Amino acid sequence: MDVAQIVFDGFTDIDVFLTWDLLHRVRRPDLRVRLLGTSRRHRSAAGLAIDMHGSIDEAREADVVIFASGPATRTLVRDAAYLARFQLDPARQWIGAMCSGALLLAGLGLLRGRRATTYPTTVAILGEMGVEVVAEPFVAEGRVATAAACLAGVDLAGWAIEAMYGPAVRSAALAEVQPVGIGAGRGAAVYGL
Amino acid sequence: MDVAQIVFDGFTDIDVFLTWDLLHRVRRPDLRVRLLGTSRRHRSAAGLAIDMHGSIDEAREADVVIFASGPATRTLVRDAAYLARFQLDPARQWIGAMCSGALLLAGLGLLRGRRATTYPTTVAILGEMGVEVVAEPFVAEGRVATAAACLAGVDLAGWAIEAMYGPAVRSAALAEVQPVGIGAGRGAAVYGL
Repeated sequence: MDVAQIVFDGFTDIDVFLTWDLLHRVRRPDLRVRLLGTSRRHRSAAGLAIDMHGSIDEAREADVVIFASGPATRTLVRDAAYLARFQLDPARQWIGAMCSGALLLAGLGLLRGRRATTYPTTVAILGEMGVEVVAEPFVAEGRVATAAACLAGVDLAGWAIEAMYGPAVRSAALAEVQPVGIGAGRGAAVYGL
Repeated sequence: MDVAQIVFDGFTDIDVFLTWDLLHRVRRPDLRVRLLGTSRRHRSAAGLAIDMHGSIDEAREADVVIFASGPATRTLVRDAAYLARFQLDPARQWIGAMCSGALLLAGLGLLRGRRATTYPTTVAILGEMGVEVVAEPFVAEGRVATAAACLAGVDLAGWAIEAMYGPAVRSAALAEVQPVGIGAGRGAAVYGL
């Protein structure tokens, strides 16, 4: 299985790194998680320079594609040349986004007729793009999912893991990061809901 | 205010990046957060190469020092030359550790007479070092704090923020990452406890 995390300059640190960490707790030899961007390195909002593993042009070949968040989503969503490089297939791929990454899903036409969530600061923009925005931590509609805010990345990563390997592998991976004494949970139960 | 995050090869990704991200949500011009190691770059457990901002020798000058976790803590805790480089002062500095990073606190004599928590896989080792290990997500005793497992990094970062800037700044920083619709919380309330 191939997972592509889509990264760009100014990405929200935890929105990339939480998913990245959780996916590596699956520990299946066939799982490859790669950070894809438009440069050799991208710098996070908090200043970390991270080497990419490949180009966004390779996202179309992944089984799961997860978009990062950050201020850049507001400009990238209006960049037709950028969007045209993805050519994703929601009939075959699992596609998700953290926070303002939902704008890119909308720009790619992936939220047409679907409910979605996003960070409070991008609710209005997403709504203007014709998306039904709901105030929930995580929304999955078919093979397209959105999560907001940062700690809901646990739900998004869990969804991706379950899509690839089933609920038992998801539970085992997420249990590892639960605070001691709090116990394992699935999905929103992670936060004790 | 200066925060030093102590990093080494094979560090648990989220145990560094979650604290790193949360501290940057404070947005105070006097706050400087730096990753300190023993090399120019250290590679995470999941394979990210991260540039350091300085050497562990500089940790003694920080206001807050937070140790990462990872398998390397088992060997570093027996490395007298490594430990001797810290010269931390628990009367002046706030000192914390994620998961197995508690071993390093113990190695530095900082857990003598203090309760602490750690990741389940290092409870026995920490106990053999004479530390009273408790099964809680977060333990603060005076100026020394321990958190386990990964998502309890929210508590540890929150504790550091409150130590430096007070509870209002802590609440504002942590509220930003709470999943949409779940609302803000302080400390363990983050998980809905």
